[in-house]
Parts: sequence; C-alpha cells; structure tokens
Amino acid sequence: MSINSLGNRFKITSFGESHGKCIGAVIDGCPAGLPIIEKDIQEDVNRRRPGKSIISTSRSEQDKIEVISGVFRGKTTGAPICMLVWNKDIDSSQYELTRNIPRPGHADYPAKVKFNGFEDYRGGGRFSARSTVGFVMAGSIAKALILKTLHAKIIAYTSEIGGIKSKKLPLAIIEEQRFKNDVKCPDFEAGKKMGRIIENAKQMGDSVGGVIECIVKDIQPGLGEPLFGALDSELSKALFSIPAVKSVGFGSGLNAASAKGSENNDEYRISNGKIVTTTNNSGGILGGISTGMPLIIRIAFKPTSSIAQKQKSVNLKKFTETKISVKGRHDPCVVPRAVPIVEAMVALVIADLGIIGGFIPPIFEGDFN
Amino acid sequence: MSINSLGNRFKITSFGESHGKCIGAVIDGCPAGLPIIEKDIQEDVNRRRPGKSIISTSRSEQDKIEVISGVFRGKTTGAPICMLVWNKDIDSSQYELTRNIPRPGHADYPAKVKFNGFEDYRGGGRFSARSTVGFVMAGSIAKALILKTLHAKIIAYTSEIGGIKSKKLPLAIIEEQRFKNDVKCPDFEAGKKMGRIIENAKQMGDSVGGVIECIVKDIQPGLGEPLFGALDSELSKALFSIPAVKSVGFGSGLNAASAKGSENNDEYRISNGKIVTTTNNSGGILGGISTGMPLIIRIAFKPTSSIAQKQKSVNLKKFTETKISVKGRHDPCVVPRAVPIVEAMVALVIADLGIIGGFIPPIFEGDFN
Amino acid sequence: MSINSLGNRFKITSFGESHGKCIGAVIDGCPAGLPIIEKDIQEDVNRRRPGKSIISTSRSEQDKIEVISGVFRGKTTGAPICMLVWNKDIDSSQYELTRNIPRPGHADYPAKVKFNGFEDYRGGGRFSARSTVGFVMAGSIAKALILKTLHAKIIAYTSEIGGIKSKKLPLAIIEEQRFKNDVKCPDFEAGKKMGRIIENAKQMGDSVGGVIECIVKDIQPGLGEPLFGALDSELSKALFSIPAVKSVGFGSGLNAASAKGSENNDEYRISNGKIVTTTNNSGGILGGISTGMPLIIRIAFKPTSSIAQKQKSVNLKKFTETKISVKGRHDPCVVPRAVPIVEAMVALVIADLGIIGGFIPPIFEGDFN
Amino acid sequence: MSINSLGNRFKITSFGESHGKCIGAVIDGCPAGLPIIEKDIQEDVNRRRPGKSIISTSRSEQDKIEVISGVFRGKTTGAPICMLVWNKDIDSSQYELTRNIPRPGHADYPAKVKFNGFEDYRGGGRFSARSTVGFVMAGSIAKALILKTLHAKIIAYTSEIGGIKSKKLPLAIIEEQRFKNDVKCPDFEAGKKMGRIIENAKQMGDSVGGVIECIVKDIQPGLGEPLFGALDSELSKALFSIPAVKSVGFGSGLNAASAKGSENNDEYRISNGKIVTTTNNSGGILGGISTGMPLIIRIAFKPTSSIAQKQKSVNLKKFTETKISVKGRHDPCVVPRAVPIVEAMVALVIADLGIIGGFIPPIFEGDFN
Repeated sequence: MSINSLGNRFKITSFGESHGKCIGAVIDGCPAGLPIIEKDIQEDVNRRRPGKSIISTSRSEQDKIEVISGVFRGKTTGAPICMLVWNKDIDSSQYELTRNIPRPGHADYPAKVKFNGFEDYRGGGRFSARSTVGFVMAGSIAKALILKTLHAKIIAYTSEIGGIKSKKLPLAIIEEQRFKNDVKCPDFEAGKKMGRIIENAKQMGDSVGGVIECIVKDIQPGLGEPLFGALDSELSKALFSIPAVKSVGFGSGLNAASAKGSENNDEYRISNGKIVTTTNNSGGILGGISTGMPLIIRIAFKPTSSIAQKQKSVNLKKFTETKISVKGRHDPCVVPRAVPIVEAMVALVIADLGIIGGFIPPIFEGDFN
Repeated sequence: MSINSLGNRFKITSFGESHGKCIGAVIDGCPAGLPIIEKDIQEDVNRRRPGKSIISTSRSEQDKIEVISGVFRGKTTGAPICMLVWNKDIDSSQYELTRNIPRPGHADYPAKVKFNGFEDYRGGGRFSARSTVGFVMAGSIAKALILKTLHAKIIAYTSEIGGIKSKKLPLAIIEEQRFKNDVKCPDFEAGKKMGRIIENAKQMGDSVGGVIECIVKDIQPGLGEPLFGALDSELSKALFSIPAVKSVGFGSGLNAASAKGSENNDEYRISNGKIVTTTNNSGGILGGISTGMPLIIRIAFKPTSSIAQKQKSVNLKKFTETKISVKGRHDPCVVPRAVPIVEAMVALVIADLGIIGGFIPPIFEGDFN
Repeated sequence: MSINSLGNRFKITSFGESHGKCIGAVIDGCPAGLPIIEKDIQEDVNRRRPGKSIISTSRSEQDKIEVISGVFRGKTTGAPICMLVWNKDIDSSQYELTRNIPRPGHADYPAKVKFNGFEDYRGGGRFSARSTVGFVMAGSIAKALILKTLHAKIIAYTSEIGGIKSKKLPLAIIEEQRFKNDVKCPDFEAGKKMGRIIENAKQMGDSVGGVIECIVKDIQPGLGEPLFGALDSELSKALFSIPAVKSVGFGSGLNAASAKGSENNDEYRISNGKIVTTTNNSGGILGGISTGMPLIIRIAFKPTSSIAQKQKSVNLKKFTETKISVKGRHDPCVVPRAVPIVEAMVALVIADLGIIGGFIPPIFEGDFN
Repeated sequence: MSINSLGNRFKITSFGESHGKCIGAVIDGCPAGLPIIEKDIQEDVNRRRPGKSIISTSRSEQDKIEVISGVFRGKTTGAPICMLVWNKDIDSSQYELTRNIPRPGHADYPAKVKFNGFEDYRGGGRFSARSTVGFVMAGSIAKALILKTLHAKIIAYTSEIGGIKSKKLPLAIIEEQRFKNDVKCPDFEAGKKMGRIIENAKQMGDSVGGVIECIVKDIQPGLGEPLFGALDSELSKALFSIPAVKSVGFGSGLNAASAKGSENNDEYRISNGKIVTTTNNSGGILGGISTGMPLIIRIAFKPTSSIAQKQKSVNLKKFTETKISVKGRHDPCVVPRAVPIVEAMVALVIADLGIIGGFIPPIFEGDFN
C-alpha cells in the first residue's frame, strides 16, 4: 500500500514507474475556466530533462506531455486533469544483474522489505526521480493558477553545489539569469565552478549534492491553515517527497538556532502603504501563515546515490556481503534538474492552500456558451 | 477556517486557546485494548511545563490532565479519546494594551489578516505554544502504542542552545541523562553553559534559539508510505507545526549538500544476522521509508519572539509606526520545553504510519468479557 | 479503530459514550466571525431530549451545553469549536446483567466482535443514540452558518409512524406546526394517531418505526462535488450515521423505479425570472448537484431495537442459546427525537459543501479590532 | 472544482469524459502481490457494455481496457494502478444543437451553473454514465482482492424493472442465472416481461426505471468504522455516485418504517458453531458494522432521463421557454447495465473498509525475488 495523493482541494495523484509504460499525474480540484497552454507545461518538463552537457544521464526521453482529460477548448472544465508522458528509452538490463544487491543510498532495500519483493525494481520503479515528471506537469498547472489568481511567482535556482555557493544577487537578476546555464545558477562564475565540480565527480565515479533556494514573490498575507495545515508544514511535506532532499529550512533556517531574538525578529514598518518587515528572517511565514513578505525556502539535496565507485552491499538472496558498482545512466548531481521540481511542489502547495483559504475562486468567469 | 487534525488513521484533533477555558485534543483511531496510564501522560505533560529555575515563564499552570472519553477500565475502547487540561492562571492584561501592535516574530499580524480580527488574540490564542499541551497528551498515548507494538523508543534532547553544542554522547547516556537538568541536555557541562546563556539573554531582555535532536531507536524497516506519505514528509510536516521551528533535517541533513556520494552513501553490511549500514547519513530513511537504522532528526528553533527589548512595529488601527516591548511572561528559550513536544509529534507520525503499514494491529487481544 | 470525523472543510469530530463522562463534538473549519448563540444550540439539543409524555425514555438528562473553545466574544474565531454536555443520570445496572447477551437489533454483537470486548458496552456506549447530542450541537452551528450565508432553511418533520402517514401539507404549515406536538408531526390528527400507536407499542413491550421527511428550501443551484462528493452521496452518508436509519431516498425515491421517464423527468420553465421545474421528482438534485429546487429527502427508521418482549439471543461467553428481555429506559419510537438529528446531519453536509463550492466565505467581515 | 476520489485506504480516483479521449481510474492503496488478470477486468467491463438486443444504446465502444501502471509481472506492486479505455465511437453532433437547452432529468442545468459553462457538455461529459467504466475497472480489482482475502462474493442482479419484479429465488440460483439474459434477471419469466416493457418504452420514446438488489455473501462480522465510516454510510455514499440512483436501503429498508420491533429485530441463534440470526431484516449491518450475515442492499434507479418524447425546457442563452426531444443514442433503461456498476461500488467500499479494519493485509506473501 502507499499514499500517492497530495493536497486537500487542489490534489495531485501520481502514478507510473521508471521503466513501466508511462509517468502520469491526475489533478483534481482545479477551478474550471483556467487556460491550459500545453507548451508551457512542456517547457517546465523540459527543464527537468537531462542537459545536453556531460553533467547528466544519457537516458534520452522525449517526455512529450499529453493531456488526456479535464481540458476542453483550451480551458479546464472543473473535471480531473490527467496528464502523462510515455516511457520510451528503457534499458533495464543493469537492474536484473543487481536485483538482489541494494544500492547504497537508494530506496532499494527498504522498498523490497516494504513490498515483499513485489515492487517494480527496474530503474528504481516508483522511487526513481522519473516520477517527478508527473510532479512537474501538475506543478505547471498550479503555477499558471497561482500566477493568474494570486499574482505570485515562484523562482527557484541552484544556490550551492559541491560546496560552491552562488553569490547573493538581486531577485530580478536571479529570475532573469537562472536558466542561462546547465546548472541553473544565476551567478555565472559560481555556475562554471559548479559545472567543473560535477564533471570531476563524474570522472571519479562519484557525485555531489547541493542546495536549491526557492523564493515566492508577491504572495499575499494569510495563506496557510494552522495548526496542522501550516504553510511551512505543507511545503516541507511536499518538498521531502522529492528524492534526495535531506533538509528544509525557512528564512534564516538553521541559522535561527544560534541567533538572538533581537537579531532574528523581523521588525515591522510601513512602506508604500503596506505593512512590511525590515528583515525577512521568518522567510515570510509566521505561525504557519504567510506574512506578505517573500517566501524563502532552502532545500538541501544529498549527492546522487548511484555512483560508479565500488561500494559495500549485501546480497539479499544469499544473505552475504558483497560489493556493487552502480552502472546504469545517472546524473552525478541531481540539483540542476531538481529546480523545476522544487517549483512544482511549492506551486502545488500554494494552489491548495490558496483554494482552502478562499484566495483562489472555485470557478473562473465564463460566458455560458 | 483552519485545519486542526493531523494523521490518516491515528489522528489528533487539537482544540483550545491560551487564554480560553482549556487546551485539549481528541485522538481517533487508537486501537482498542491499549492500557492508558494517566500518570505517564501527566509526566510527559509535566516535562513541557516551565522549569522552576529562572529560565522559564512565570505563568504557573497545574496542567492536570483529564481523559473524558474513549477509555474504559483503564484501556482504550476503540472510540475517540478526548483529553484536556483546564486553563487557570490567565492574565490577559498585557494583550489588551498591545492588541493592535503586532509583536515582531509572532503570528499576531498574519493571524489578524487571516481571521479578520475575529481571532482570540489573548496570549497568542491558538498560536500560543500552550496548544502543544494537547500535542503532548496525544503524543504520550502514541508513545505507549509504539512502545508496545513496534518496541521503538523516541529519545529527544537539547543538542544546541545559543551556539553551545552538546558533545557527542552514546545513545544510552543521552537517554539516561537528558532530563537531569533544566535545559534537557545530557552533556551536563554544555548544559550549564546553555543555562547561563539563557539567563544572560533574559537579563538583556533578549532570547536565544537552539536545536533539538530526536532519535528513534529499534524502529523496523518498511515504515512510510511514499510518494506522498513518506516518513520524512510526514515527520517534517508534524514538526513544523511546533511553534518556532525553522528547519528540519534528517541524518546528515544540510551537510549532505556539501558531501560526495562516496562519503554520504551508507554502505550495507550484515551484523548479528541483520542488515545494517556502516554509517547512518540517511538518518534511517531512504526513499521515504525507514531502513531499520535509528531515525535521526534535527530540528532548529528560532529564539523566542517575545522579548523585553524595544522593537519597531506598527499600530494596525492607526496605521502608524510605533515601538513595542513585549511584557507578559515568556521563556527566553523555548528549546528545553520543546523536547517533549518534539517527541510527541514524532510519536504521532510513527503511530499513524505504523497502523497504515500494518505494523500496528487494529485491536489488541481481548478476552471477550 | 474507528472513524469519527465527518466532512472535508466543515468537519465534525464526535466523541463520548452513553455512560461515560460526556458527549461532545469538535467542529473544525467554521469561518471566523459567525455569531454563536448558545441558547439556539440549547434549543436544538432540547428538541432531541425525551418528551414529557409517556412516549419516551425516562432517562432524564439536563443536556446543558458548554462551548469550551473556538468562540470569543460571542463569535467564532476560526479555531476549532469544542462543545460538550456532561452525562449525569447514568444507570448502568441493566447492562452488567446482560453483558454477554447481545440485544437483537442492536450493535452489541458486531461491536463486541469488532473491538474484542474492549468497547464500553454500558448503555450501548458509542453506539447509543446519545452520541447524537454531539451531532445536534454541531448541526446547530451549521444551521446558523447556512442561514446566514446561503439563506437556506432545513425543515424536518415526522411524516410517518407505525404506518400512519402525515397528510400532504404546504411547506409553510409544516414549518409552523411541526414542533407543536410530541411526535413532531404537523398534521395534528395524524400526530394523535401516531401518539396512540406509540403508547400501544409501549404497553405491548414493543416498538414502532417511521419516516422523517426533510426539506431544504431556498437552496441555490450548484451545491455538490461530483463524482464522489455528490450532494446525495454526502447526505446519505451522513444520514446513515444516525442509529436506526435503514433507507434514504431523494425526491420520488423508491417510486422512481416504477415510473416512466416521461412521468419522472422534471420539465424546466421560467418563473419570476428564475429557472425552475414544474415537478420536483429529482428532489432538487441532478447529477449530484443541487438544481435550485427544494431538496426533498426521506429517511426511514426501523422500530427501536430495545423491547421488553422476550427475544431469542445467545450467551456469547457460554456460547449457548438463551432469551433476553431488554429492560433499561428506552423510547418505543425514535422518530420524534430524530427530527433534530436529521436536520443536524443535513446541515453539516450543506455547510461543508457550501464551503467547498465557494458559496460560504472563509471569514466574515470584521472590523480589525 | 470537484471531488473525484473515493475511499480512505483503497482509493479510486476517476477521470475522463464521455466524448473526451478516454475514461480512466487510478487505484491507490491496493496491497502488493495481488494477481491481476486483465481478462477478468475486461469481462466485468463487458457486462456494462450495451447488449446486442434492441434494449440498449447503439453507441458501440470496444472498451478495451489498458493497465498502464502499478502492475509488474502480473501482480500489483503496491504502486498506484492506472487503467483506462480510449473513447472511439464519438458522435457529438446532437450536443451542439441543444447546448443551451438543458435536458430534463439530466445534470445539464446544474452542471452549467456549477462550472459557469466551462464543463465539457458533449455526451454529458463527466456526468455521463460512461464514467462508470472507470468504476467497473477499479471495482474488478477490488472484487479480486475481496475474494482472495475475505472470501466474500458480491452478487447483484436486476430485481425490478418497470414495475415487474423478479420472484424470490435462492441465492445459488440468482448467482448462476443472473447473467443469462440481457436484463440480468435470474427469474427468466420476469426477465422476459422486463425486456418487453423496455422495448415498449423505447417504441414510445419513453424509458423505465427499476431496482437492483446486491447481496454480499460470506462477509465476516466487524467490517465498518462507525460513527462516520459506518458500513451502510460508506456503501450508500458510493452507490449514490452512480447516475440515476434515487434510493438506497439495507435489509428491510423502507419496510422497516412500518414494522414493529418484535417483527423487525433479528433474533440470534447458534448454527454450525456460528452465531447467526433467524431473519436478516438488518441486511447484515447493525450499528454500521457487518454482523456476519449476508449484506442485502436495494438500489432504486429512476427511468433514463434521455427520452425522444418532446419535453418542456428552457433556452439558457435566450432565457426563453422551449421544447426538446433528446435524440442521441440512449438506453431506455439503465438497470441491466448498472448491475456490474453496483457490484463495483460495493466492492470498492468493502476493500477499503477491509483494509482499514485489518481484515485485508497490506502486502501479500512474496518470495523476495
């Protein structure tokens, strides 16, 4: 058994496996009348495809999206929207060889225990990052909904890879420059270093991790349903469903632990007739509700688990110790491809809480024709 | 509107306000036949009460728990369990004065926006950490359930306050020593320094934050329902519902971002006929499922928002800038009192996923009498 | 385990047992700013109390309601509303004697199987109709919310008892006269006969059933969330949670089965600038959505299971056949007391769907003070 | 917005439209290791296809089912199972003509109000009975799960059409004979009359309704999660999601209203070492929990709304009164085709409650290969 739906009112149900027929998602609860531009969805999906450079997997999937329900004459109907991409470039050969030898850092072992060996293990099956194609398709619709109704924009970018950090840049620059290199870092110089670190890791049969920062600008105050539908709660829940995420923080995050209240509190002032704070250590969230300041979220990714270097493992069938070198086709760093996935998860949560909180209407204006 | 229930099968519904009549919780979904020892619940609740020392609020609540449904002859019946404590020592005077001046770092402002001024603002109302008494009562029952069925034990302690860190100690020592000082730190020397830092902060009209580490030992592999009921997802969601939490990480957490795959992957080996890993950078979770290694969770708390120092704020009614010094009765550091709250939230999640995953039976053995 | 919450956004969580300390309910999701008049709630609760006449149980409970959270200065705050009544007049003596002999027609046997004998069997425990006090309290708030926002009114009455049917009366008469006799039948003559039938049944140590009709007037079109949150689906689900309900029908109900399409279809016409139907065989629901015509629901109740006549049963402990005569204090007909319970369940569903559909605002207008 | 998921643990999410690309369903929560036989699913789907005789619509859909996720090597994996059929024989011409003239008895009008005209109106869109192909596919898997784990069997048949009732037959005969005629009535003589009544209705441009009885045999006691997950509550909710259902009753149903307690109570006795009841007026459900006796459910269907006879309606665009004769391709009676749909909905509910109650294991035995 498993739980593959997320959200209360704007709900995604994910399905599909890495080496199965397809990857898909159903969105239920999208208001009727939202224009759906397939090429925008495709563009988001393309952003999570492997880059052309050395730094990514050689699996080559077209990932051409298909919307098979819920859209009529270019607009949502209020009915569930099913979208999918078909898997084409499947090579399961590596997986048969090592079926009983769990890859360190992967879900192989706990998944096998959980599903008694019935799981589709090929390519990681459900646990493959390939599942996130469905997240991105759904998130793309959520982003369109948010932009149209809340006028909020979600901007994620690579802020750290392998210890190299992007320098502090103005949000406008981040927004403009973040997709201009393969690592999705708006600081081009840092981006170059990151690229080199990834290449080095690959050559060493190794991998590196990193951090994505996500900012939501122009979000209104009042979003979030505490105590147990708090904005930070729901965001973190959604973000930890992305493979390889190990830490999620808001605003000053972990640094808040060593700060003083007088430093960490964000003082209020009035600016252009609006109530704002002079700092934003809260990351735009207080008491689980948005304050009206930008949301600031930092998500840490571990290095890719699949590495060519030999590692110790066990043969589950023979119950003996052994070694494994993960062949297959793998990214030495998941961070660049995870940028659109982070945006998707954040969008799904905001769409859901926006509807619950009454910020997003249940139906758009129509003309009864 | 709001969302005040957490969990799918073992579900807590929280109610009550800081300066209202009571704080309570209903648990629905607890298997029938679990022995309920009221004094164990009381003990957990007492651990989140303010210490006797200088380092805590002077509000003095007995917090005597009452179980008003769902328990019959000392055992759960399968019916919902309602528990509450009555509020007694209420002093709302400070709150009337500053009703329209939101305290920096508090939920006052977004809550007022969200509820149009209808919220019970006295003492922070629903947003007061006092709500967590209900979490702890419910969590205490979850802990009893987990101990009896999963034989797992949840051990949280203060690992950092105001920059002072507890030294690495063996788990057995942590378990034994953590409640032996007011700061709930098993490293007594560090604990002394933490105490002094808290006192200093108080004297300066300031506050400090810190980190709680929570370990779940003897947890079996297979817990968690990915993709969207992942163990880390559900834990982080529950933990961010605790006031003042700003970051949650598992295993190597944020450090994973700067590690290499060859360092961060946990290799498998066989030990005493069990499959274990040589390191535990995953924090006992892979692919959203428990691996059988101890869960390791680090939760960062910001410094208490209520400080005596003057801070800038605005008068929402007059729409002018002003200053505020938060009087009232406040802890200069929430971390020590949050230790049992962390345990409670972790217990609630594990009980819920334990039932969903079939690890916890729906009913205990009875004798039909 | 059990499920004791109903609703998606306007959610009731029920707790308490017949012979426990109290009966209660928590409402979560009520918009902030709704005036709460305790005496209106009390009046609804009083309507389900036993009548003064011979026709009801002699258990005498004050059922004085207490609102212990979620209301501040006479208005809802957006926080969960916990309400309860304390049990006072408890006499469990009858239940000890027959602990192992399930009463025919009661939940005793399946409940014992389900909960392995851990259930609180006194007075039927959770399965007692006494649980419905909580439904009525919650429903009362739902009715106030609906009246204020949808301007819809819920009118239930006794339409049949022991084979005696109320004659067809105009809705205005039904509304005015339904509470003027103990059986809650607006047709006074039929009501008198019903009363006599109940008395006769009581004297014979027997019981009778009946039918309640519930009409919701002035409900707007568009309520209901098909396919699986259909208005009729949600209403029937809620109504079957009332003890003793055996059938639920909408509009022509069971009669639709033997009608022709040309008879049963409701033709459209325009009346006073509104689209209406000439008949209302649909009971105001098409495709799971309200049409704007009044909702018409018929709910059949079986005769009270507790009867003084000797009936065959089994001793579950000795596993032998035996006989039982149910003593205790019981209504020979539950229908009159169920009228406010039916209204409550209908109100809870409409409030929930009203919020989901965007007909009910998440917060009322406030003045920020 | 809408709600298109049903179930707590064994959950169906429905998608697709009558004249869209496909009809589909995702099942989430099916235990891993269940054998999936596609031809069994196909057989169930075929049973809801129009018959070859005059009595059904001339729309001819192959309805070839495709399982596109969640099954690996013939067994469920624990991952979500997505199934669909592609729509092929689409003729939307009739619907353009009458776009603004709602068909009496159909969802056209309330759907248009609810979705502001954005709904896909072709062929009734989401409200078409064609959606139920998805229910049947999902129900087929639920039936396989129930049979394997609970050893319970679900048997539905046509018990009444156009006033003609099937005579009382032993369950074994019902089970054997019910699919041997087009009307799915095990009483062949009654079946012949029903067939003639349907033909007559068709010739008159009219339609007829009827009743389906559904029996679940060999169901164990203890199923159902009262108060708000009661077995009858969940069944009725699911059954009212089938188009055209107007009444649902259990056991003696509506007749219970005019019975006496001494007649309606089911006395207990011991038979073959099991506790049974001498009658089964409860329909196998007491207090919302199964008693161990067969479930007996009666579901009333209204006559098909689409009739060729001229009926009054309104032009929503011109806001004038008009007439409509529904052309298209329609069944003059939906009952025979609804038999497998009823079985599907009952199966989905029992699978869900079976998992929740611990009667169905979360995973089947595997061999770790």
